[in-house]
Amino acid sequence: MAEQRIVAIAGGVGGAKLAHGLQLALPNAGALSVIVNTADDFDLYGLRICPDLDTVMYTLAGLANPATGWGIEGDSFATLGMLARYSGEPWFQLGDRDFATHVHRTQQLRSGATLSEVTASMASALGIRAALIPMTDDRVATMIDTPDGRLDFQDYFVARRHGDRVLGVQFDGISLARPCESALRAIAEASAIIFCPSNPIVSLGPVLAVPGMRDAIERSSAPVVAVSPIVGGRALKGPADSMLDSLGHEVSAAGVAALYLGLLDGIVIDEADAALAEQIESSGMRVVVTRTVMQSYEDRAQLARETLGFAATLAATLPAP
Amino acid sequence: MAEQRIVAIAGGVGGAKLAHGLQLALPNAGALSVIVNTADDFDLYGLRICPDLDTVMYTLAGLANPATGWGIEGDSFATLGMLARYSGEPWFQLGDRDFATHVHRTQQLRSGATLSEVTASMASALGIRAALIPMTDDRVATMIDTPDGRLDFQDYFVARRHGDRVLGVQFDGISLARPCESALRAIAEASAIIFCPSNPIVSLGPVLAVPGMRDAIERSSAPVVAVSPIVGGRALKGPADSMLDSLGHEVSAAGVAALYLGLLDGIVIDEADAALAEQIESSGMRVVVTRTVMQSYEDRAQLARETLGFAATLAATLPAP
Repeated sequence: MAEQRIVAIAGGVGGAKLAHGLQLALPNAGALSVIVNTADDFDLYGLRICPDLDTVMYTLAGLANPATGWGIEGDSFATLGMLARYSGEPWFQLGDRDFATHVHRTQQLRSGATLSEVTASMASALGIRAALIPMTDDRVATMIDTPDGRLDFQDYFVARRHGDRVLGVQFDGISLARPCESALRAIAEASAIIFCPSNPIVSLGPVLAVPGMRDAIERSSAPVVAVSPIVGGRALKGPADSMLDSLGHEVSAAGVAALYLGLLDGIVIDEADAALAEQIESSGMRVVVTRTVMQSYEDRAQLARETLGFAATLAATLPAP
Repeated sequence: MAEQRIVAIAGGVGGAKLAHGLQLALPNAGALSVIVNTADDFDLYGLRICPDLDTVMYTLAGLANPATGWGIEGDSFATLGMLARYSGEPWFQLGDRDFATHVHRTQQLRSGATLSEVTASMASALGIRAALIPMTDDRVATMIDTPDGRLDFQDYFVARRHGDRVLGVQFDGISLARPCESALRAIAEASAIIFCPSNPIVSLGPVLAVPGMRDAIERSSAPVVAVSPIVGGRALKGPADSMLDSLGHEVSAAGVAALYLGLLDGIVIDEADAALAEQIESSGMRVVVTRTVMQSYEDRAQLARETLGFAATLAATLPAP
């Protein structure tokens, strides 16, 4: 049997947890590639901030703050406190160790490195053996249309605590963005592709919207499996539920499955949603029902093992490439 | 009597102490302008670091670390520790609060602000009423010629702990540098000009070498008074003594006076150097002998009061402009 090569596609906190589970579950962590949303990236204090990349990086490195999901566990906030004296109260929390990530990345980008190069170098420095890959080295910016007008994503998400009704979502720059070569290569060589339980609209949505990314996944002979981020009609974290609703989608695992229709061979849904399995299977994809809420490291590894096992089963039944 | 307006010219630690003393001694701190050396400035981690400006700023704000002379008292080093994971062991210490200064300054400079603008804005944010003025908004870089070749100043000063014999000193960019308008205005309006006890070669040297600065001081009708940074033939801090020696100057308060000849009306020297008073006075400048070693805040204020009193005496005896 050929060595398995797993591609995970992830946004922030929920996606990072399953990516971490895959790293724990795989006998060779180097067999894992995680392609991460960068459409939330923005500039603050003159530094390039990549919230999803950093959340996945800190999570895979075992540094993540489990209480907040973002940032580094036990980080201090002295730099931000001093910056507040110079430029007013911060609306975005950045810890002292976290600042080092943004300072180093910004310096490397200004020196001509690509985002994928500096990301790979930082992940390696933190001892991560999985490949951490931004969806693109080009700049893409998620914009949120609300009754108050169009908002930058972090303005909507952090400053306004995702309290606005979402009327539309745009990814500025997406049509000119090119997928990272390393992402396309990982997809082409994958033995399974996992859509992590991240927001399908603003986390996995931008990744799949990078020109060429969806084609690469469709061309792959590997089974494609999603884990639903909606459990019992609610998002475990963030605004995916209200966003799906206001954009006219069904707020359920079935609604998530419908958004990925044509890409997925199967979807993992929570026990709370077992009643939806038949409806989803009627759309032509296979369903596994299990416990998907990840509270411990063992929960992450267990969900990863079940998802990998599901993908292996699907691979055995898929037509040969 | 017209309001006194005091200009202090300063480098790092020693100069900052007397500038602080002047701030403490003056009834109106707003009457003080401190013109600071920027030829030590450099880039690190993609950030613009201005060691002397920051030392003076933190000292005037009451934030300086009295143990080291540089940095902020009680600062932590989490950002630097994390940066070390990404890019190796640091050779220059930067605290977490200190990082905020460099991040904010770099962002403002990249946004088009001048160094004097961002310096004034930061000093004001830290509650400093004195005017803190870089010698120039242009880039000047001190280079040190040694038996091992030409070194960047911070390489010589910090990384190699000023252990190399200094064969020559160059200020790259100095011929094109323009003095800050606010510095020239402060000098023109000054009722006294104080050369703080900083290294005459690499701290005050660059300030006086900015084209137009020396002329402005010579044109001023205000008394010009230095406080010697050499006490008993030794620099209180840093390499001024060995640098004077290897460059062929007398390592004494008299040697300092000789370097400033033509600019000074008087010099304040330490009690330890009382025997030099006659020699210095024979060169045509007046001398005050007092205790110049500043250990406490009261020492700083006392030396400032004596220096101001000396300048006032000189003003009374100088020819009218």
